[in-house]
Amino acid sequence: MDLGLNGRNAIVMASSRGLGFACAEALAREGANVTINGRNAEVVRAASDTLRESYDSRVCEVVADASTQEGRKLLLSAYENPDILILNGGGPPPIPFQKTDEKVWQKTLNETLTSPLLMVQAVIEGMKKRKFGRIVAITSAMVKSPHPLMTLSHAPRTGLTSVLKSISRESVKHNVTINQLLPERFETERHRSLLKSTAKLQNKSVEEAEQDIKTSLASGRLGRPEEFGDACAFLCAAQSGYICGQNLMLDGGNYKGQS
Amino acid sequence: MDLGLNGRNAIVMASSRGLGFACAEALAREGANVTINGRNAEVVRAASDTLRESYDSRVCEVVADASTQEGRKLLLSAYENPDILILNGGGPPPIPFQKTDEKVWQKTLNETLTSPLLMVQAVIEGMKKRKFGRIVAITSAMVKSPHPLMTLSHAPRTGLTSVLKSISRESVKHNVTINQLLPERFETERHRSLLKSTAKLQNKSVEEAEQDIKTSLASGRLGRPEEFGDACAFLCAAQSGYICGQNLMLDGGNYKGQS
Amino acid sequence: MDLGLNGRNAIVMASSRGLGFACAEALAREGANVTINGRNAEVVRAASDTLRESYDSRVCEVVADASTQEGRKLLLSAYENPDILILNGGGPPPIPFQKTDEKVWQKTLNETLTSPLLMVQAVIEGMKKRKFGRIVAITSAMVKSPHPLMTLSHAPRTGLTSVLKSISRESVKHNVTINQLLPERFETERHRSLLKSTAKLQNKSVEEAEQDIKTSLASGRLGRPEEFGDACAFLCAAQSGYICGQNLMLDGGNYKGQS
Amino acid sequence: MDLGLNGRNAIVMASSRGLGFACAEALAREGANVTINGRNAEVVRAASDTLRESYDSRVCEVVADASTQEGRKLLLSAYENPDILILNGGGPPPIPFQKTDEKVWQKTLNETLTSPLLMVQAVIEGMKKRKFGRIVAITSAMVKSPHPLMTLSHAPRTGLTSVLKSISRESVKHNVTINQLLPERFETERHRSLLKSTAKLQNKSVEEAEQDIKTSLASGRLGRPEEFGDACAFLCAAQSGYICGQNLMLDGGNYKGQS
Repeated sequence: MDLGLNGRNAIVMASSRGLGFACAEALAREGANVTINGRNAEVVRAASDTLRESYDSRVCEVVADASTQEGRKLLLSAYENPDILILNGGGPPPIPFQKTDEKVWQKTLNETLTSPLLMVQAVIEGMKKRKFGRIVAITSAMVKSPHPLMTLSHAPRTGLTSVLKSISRESVKHNVTINQLLPERFETERHRSLLKSTAKLQNKSVEEAEQDIKTSLASGRLGRPEEFGDACAFLCAAQSGYICGQNLMLDGGNYKGQS
Repeated sequence: MDLGLNGRNAIVMASSRGLGFACAEALAREGANVTINGRNAEVVRAASDTLRESYDSRVCEVVADASTQEGRKLLLSAYENPDILILNGGGPPPIPFQKTDEKVWQKTLNETLTSPLLMVQAVIEGMKKRKFGRIVAITSAMVKSPHPLMTLSHAPRTGLTSVLKSISRESVKHNVTINQLLPERFETERHRSLLKSTAKLQNKSVEEAEQDIKTSLASGRLGRPEEFGDACAFLCAAQSGYICGQNLMLDGGNYKGQS
Repeated sequence: MDLGLNGRNAIVMASSRGLGFACAEALAREGANVTINGRNAEVVRAASDTLRESYDSRVCEVVADASTQEGRKLLLSAYENPDILILNGGGPPPIPFQKTDEKVWQKTLNETLTSPLLMVQAVIEGMKKRKFGRIVAITSAMVKSPHPLMTLSHAPRTGLTSVLKSISRESVKHNVTINQLLPERFETERHRSLLKSTAKLQNKSVEEAEQDIKTSLASGRLGRPEEFGDACAFLCAAQSGYICGQNLMLDGGNYKGQS
Repeated sequence: MDLGLNGRNAIVMASSRGLGFACAEALAREGANVTINGRNAEVVRAASDTLRESYDSRVCEVVADASTQEGRKLLLSAYENPDILILNGGGPPPIPFQKTDEKVWQKTLNETLTSPLLMVQAVIEGMKKRKFGRIVAITSAMVKSPHPLMTLSHAPRTGLTSVLKSISRESVKHNVTINQLLPERFETERHRSLLKSTAKLQNKSVEEAEQDIKTSLASGRLGRPEEFGDACAFLCAAQSGYICGQNLMLDGGNYKGQS
């Protein structure tokens, strides 16, 4: 299937590894120019080189922390005319709600809600003028099914979802779509790290915690990052202009509620 | 993007025109064998020929009414091992709830709820054994936002959605996914026909009714059937095995609620 | 709190025991005239007597099966001007989807979807004319979180919900509200009976099955029918005219999704 | 109906007028002790006196801005053992998303998300120990149907909802319930003020804007604050311990989506 992405300019936040990298790779494979972004120069370089070796598309490296104004400026300077923006970022570790405090709330709201919104603000008007734009936010299955140990993660993400939904109804008529991908349990480094924290909090070994997770999943397996990347590429496709304002879960059918 | 559908056997119900045909075409383009189904032999033949002229995949014609036991039997005899099942069917005309009666309810529930369920029953165990299956139901945006003139349409479709969601949690571990596509306002013959009925009920000209619709849509345009077909093909892709139990709206971002 | 229900006429379907009886009792306590309905004359009589002993309101007995035309006729003859209609009915036993057949689907769709709709059809226009009406459907938490063993129950109930939602937007301006109550795990005879079936299907003792249920519930306890009845009475209150089209779960906070 | 609230201690935030006052009044009428809170001493005094004249319950005045640490401290000092907490606060004026900036986002997130969460943190453990607690957040219908002019309002409120839902599953087993009330279009001063802003933004007269609103509402009328107060009192009732994690809309049936 031709996704019509050849030559499109894609900013992919937090894309030096994990699901962000998987999205960048799928977009690069389809011929889009992609920006690899991360805070660690070596990791960004390695990820970029991997893409350059496999695909013809141009890869741009931006070592920057998108939760700061300077970081966002750098990211936005990658292209004069960005066509695609993938909102992504790390997440906080699990912590019981009663142990959160005002400071940690300000930090997570800035990183996971305000920062991506400011990125959207910076690109959306140009996209509307050029009559093409694809914005995809990588959020979490917890937007639909919030976990008490992850309030710092799902609160800003649901807030972000709410803003994106409301403004998408105004952008879609200019062929600028905004959608969210809601992952649950992919084989990424972040998964490994969360697994360790969860194990510690629940007083279990990592192996026990992993087995518990797999048993608890309807699919009985973790998702593969490349499955995620392809879903992202599809939402960015030229022919996906009628898909807008959607929360697409990639959770192996795990969510029990009506979606 | 390679969807990994080459040689897969796809039963597409009510596929001689409209969104069903668009799904069949996208699947055929990706190399799947497809069954074209409808009640009118000439229309089925014409649709099949159109696909044969453009694509190499095998096209099988089944003139049958899937709301009858014989019709379903015929459809199911097309392949020994079906890999893909697209649930689709015509819908009732708009009618105020107070004018519906017991008989018309029985008819619509049989056609739009029980019949597709019996099709699923017939194929799902084989899919699970063979470790591959993709079931996509074409429902309606009204599953999320039900209209009082269309109770005969959205009641069976929401019931169908409910059953599919519940059984999908058991099939996904065998790589059998079940998802729904929720269209709103595509340029199809059905759209034309509904438009006429609506216009009549609202005492308007067809042109006025169409203009009202476009103005009321966030995207300001109707969807194109080929956009719908590509979304269907993507959900059927080999790499979409982690997408299950989803209601994906194709409504040009029109729905105002959180999805 | 005065609910303003004194002298209102309430038809409560399937109210000789369980949640239906609890609703009838709460309405009677608030001064409404209530119809006790069931298929067993002795049980209907006993339930009616219980209410008559405790409350001053008039109690009318209707021994009738509301899934038949004659049954509905009898029920509707109780009051010339019904003000309140509580939709309720038994539910099917748990059964795996693959074991359901066309006949059993027709039966459950008639009993749990078409029959209540025909009751609504019969009363709603009068309510609109008289500028007061309260319709409450007792459905199930499975409308939000459908279970694969209970497809015969949640499919018709979600279909019913869809119709009620769509027509409620037209009735509310006449002070006729329609809402749904979604119970999960109340201490009723139906609970006991389902427990036995589930235990059998899962090859467990009833005690084990019950313990599994309590452990699985967020609240750690079953709901009390009188809690349910009071919620129903509140939705029927004079001052609840701005609450319409709602799915109110009474599940002890068990559902994990955003509601 | 006896709500079992006699002698309960209720902190009602932002309760000197509007929906907050209506909640305080309904709770006081049911015999609860209530805290009237606002930033203007005269308004707080007047509201408190109104309650004292009509009801026997004790009324405590707290002039404080709950978005500050000192303000929250004052509010929390009202009772040693609070039983009920009503989360409420003013909302930002309508403003297009593109005109929002980092500073205004920080302000709204602090006021409407972090501050209420810190209030919950302060009271919930005590409630759990004492085996009774009722927390009700007054949010907005826009949690379900977000408007592009109100991103500063619905983003923090959806985030708040997400946190409350997740922690409610842990508190309910201690008879501490958490629910949300989602108002739309009540006859309050806030309504008047929003109406003016909207009118200005849409270049209309206030009368035109009001007429547009009424015409757009399914119920054809605005809600009355006392209807809202009674719904709040019902959620706080002793017999409402099995209602938890719910989003109850009070919107006159206006929302078109499945709720």
